[in-house]
Amino acid sequence: MKALLVNDTGSKPEMILGTAPTPSPGDYELLVKIKATALNRADLLQKSGNYPPPKGSSPILGLEMAGIVEETGHEVTRYEKGDQVFGLLPGGGYAEYATIHERMAMHIPEGFSFEEAAAIPEVFLTAFQALKLLGKIKRNENVLIHAGASGVGTAAIQLAKKLFNCTVITTASKKKKLKACLELGADIAINYKKTDFSEEIISQLGENSIDLVLDFVGAPYWEQNINVIAMDGRLIYLAMLGGAKVKQLNLVPVLRKRLTIQGSTLRNRTDEYKMNLTSDFHSYAMELVENRDIQPVIHEIFDWNHAEQAHKMMEKNRNIGKVILTGM
Amino acid sequence: MKALLVNDTGSKPEMILGTAPTPSPGDYELLVKIKATALNRADLLQKSGNYPPPKGSSPILGLEMAGIVEETGHEVTRYEKGDQVFGLLPGGGYAEYATIHERMAMHIPEGFSFEEAAAIPEVFLTAFQALKLLGKIKRNENVLIHAGASGVGTAAIQLAKKLFNCTVITTASKKKKLKACLELGADIAINYKKTDFSEEIISQLGENSIDLVLDFVGAPYWEQNINVIAMDGRLIYLAMLGGAKVKQLNLVPVLRKRLTIQGSTLRNRTDEYKMNLTSDFHSYAMELVENRDIQPVIHEIFDWNHAEQAHKMMEKNRNIGKVILTGM
Repeated sequence: MKALLVNDTGSKPEMILGTAPTPSPGDYELLVKIKATALNRADLLQKSGNYPPPKGSSPILGLEMAGIVEETGHEVTRYEKGDQVFGLLPGGGYAEYATIHERMAMHIPEGFSFEEAAAIPEVFLTAFQALKLLGKIKRNENVLIHAGASGVGTAAIQLAKKLFNCTVITTASKKKKLKACLELGADIAINYKKTDFSEEIISQLGENSIDLVLDFVGAPYWEQNINVIAMDGRLIYLAMLGGAKVKQLNLVPVLRKRLTIQGSTLRNRTDEYKMNLTSDFHSYAMELVENRDIQPVIHEIFDWNHAEQAHKMMEKNRNIGKVILTGM
Repeated sequence: MKALLVNDTGSKPEMILGTAPTPSPGDYELLVKIKATALNRADLLQKSGNYPPPKGSSPILGLEMAGIVEETGHEVTRYEKGDQVFGLLPGGGYAEYATIHERMAMHIPEGFSFEEAAAIPEVFLTAFQALKLLGKIKRNENVLIHAGASGVGTAAIQLAKKLFNCTVITTASKKKKLKACLELGADIAINYKKTDFSEEIISQLGENSIDLVLDFVGAPYWEQNINVIAMDGRLIYLAMLGGAKVKQLNLVPVLRKRLTIQGSTLRNRTDEYKMNLTSDFHSYAMELVENRDIQPVIHEIFDWNHAEQAHKMMEKNRNIGKVILTGM
């Protein structure tokens, strides 16, 4: 089959179209003809050699896909050939075919394109995991979502608002991004480049007002996050794009406010965990997706021949929502 | 009634015997004639003015007691006059009488003295809360308990070992204390003054081997704790006796190892929380207490006329287990 491979013979690693063995479905697995896949920041890291894929998984990039079931392995009961499915992959999405455990797959809702479906798994499952499983979100809480215009950000804003009726505060850097966040349901969108977000939150919602923080930035936001967080608050790290080294950290609020600080990534979780997460997400949120109360946010769709161009856009942090590859 | 009061007219605040109004039991409350109470580190802080009691609770020190029910308030169904009870108090234990909600009280097991019973509530409920409710302890995990010879330490070692069959690693500073920890069931007791506990743990159990850490020390142990902790590990802070300011902290392991870092104190929890905790502890652990598989550890019993002397002993960190006041 055709697949995008990493050419690292030049000065910078680049995506090039090549060939790889077509996978064959094992027990409980579907072989899917991929129609669309989506970019993730982990792809950029993996491409540069900084984020090796989990053991036993495909060296091909691509953590999610949407497509058509081509063949079913033994013991498969939930799907048949021709079904349109989408879901998380441990890797291998940048290709014509991939295998997926049937419990990791979901039916594409009626009226959804492959591109839309491919924009859902990673960001919505990551956001759902962070809000619900890790962050123990409760209805009507105040939730601070950093990088609100990122893929996970746009998913988290919608889930916090539509599923849990929370007051959603978000940060982003540009007018366009701030506007997008508000349109997705955020109540307050703060330009972190223009104001100290913690001061803004304190002035609008009061001190110690944030029950749950989703952070992708890390060290630079530590103190501000800790300042705005409420008693029994939770601070969830999904990435540390701004660095991980904090100077002069005071642990007193951790004790005084009974905080929980937790880090997590989705990719290195077990298949069992991801299957349960998929099933949880499906029962909690898929109805809202089907009704389009919750929407995948797509920034741009690229033909997979232009994957390198798509990567460059994500590197420059220009996208609001997901960047999709199609045309396999 | 007689009660120990804080005399802060001198150069240092001191406990003196005085009088205070006898409390009267409200709905669901018991009036208890106190026979024994126990010291907590919070008492020392409160005495020095650094730890004001929660709103609405007694200004008298004393967070636990054992005694005899003298009178029952309206709606009380579980106890009657003459019953021997013990339990957590929001304050007020350093006195002849105190009131306690019936759901916060437990029957004193047969054969237990009041002094033994008074040594149980704070340390065992705190340790149980930290291990089970916060730390999500699982059977056969590796648990690191700092300050193993402290009140909470001695309780945590026993609970981790006897209730959850864990491998228990503990730290203490003196031969006597290390010996006491091993006798209580610790598998490894490390003199933190003589060796770097993290190096010792890595050499004995391997890297990333600790599933759960109970820490009372804070900043000085941050890095060592993070170094030994395993994937999906939990680090629970119950105090920061060694300070709370960490210089140069690296958050990467929080993300990579999917750590959970949590701070908590018991005293400022709601009554409802404490009642549920009491009930949970009772159903999980009271049988082991009744059979003396789990033992309260008493360092010394003082007549309450010598409360000041008892405080000084705790200030100097000399005690292994609980310091009891009696003779009310």
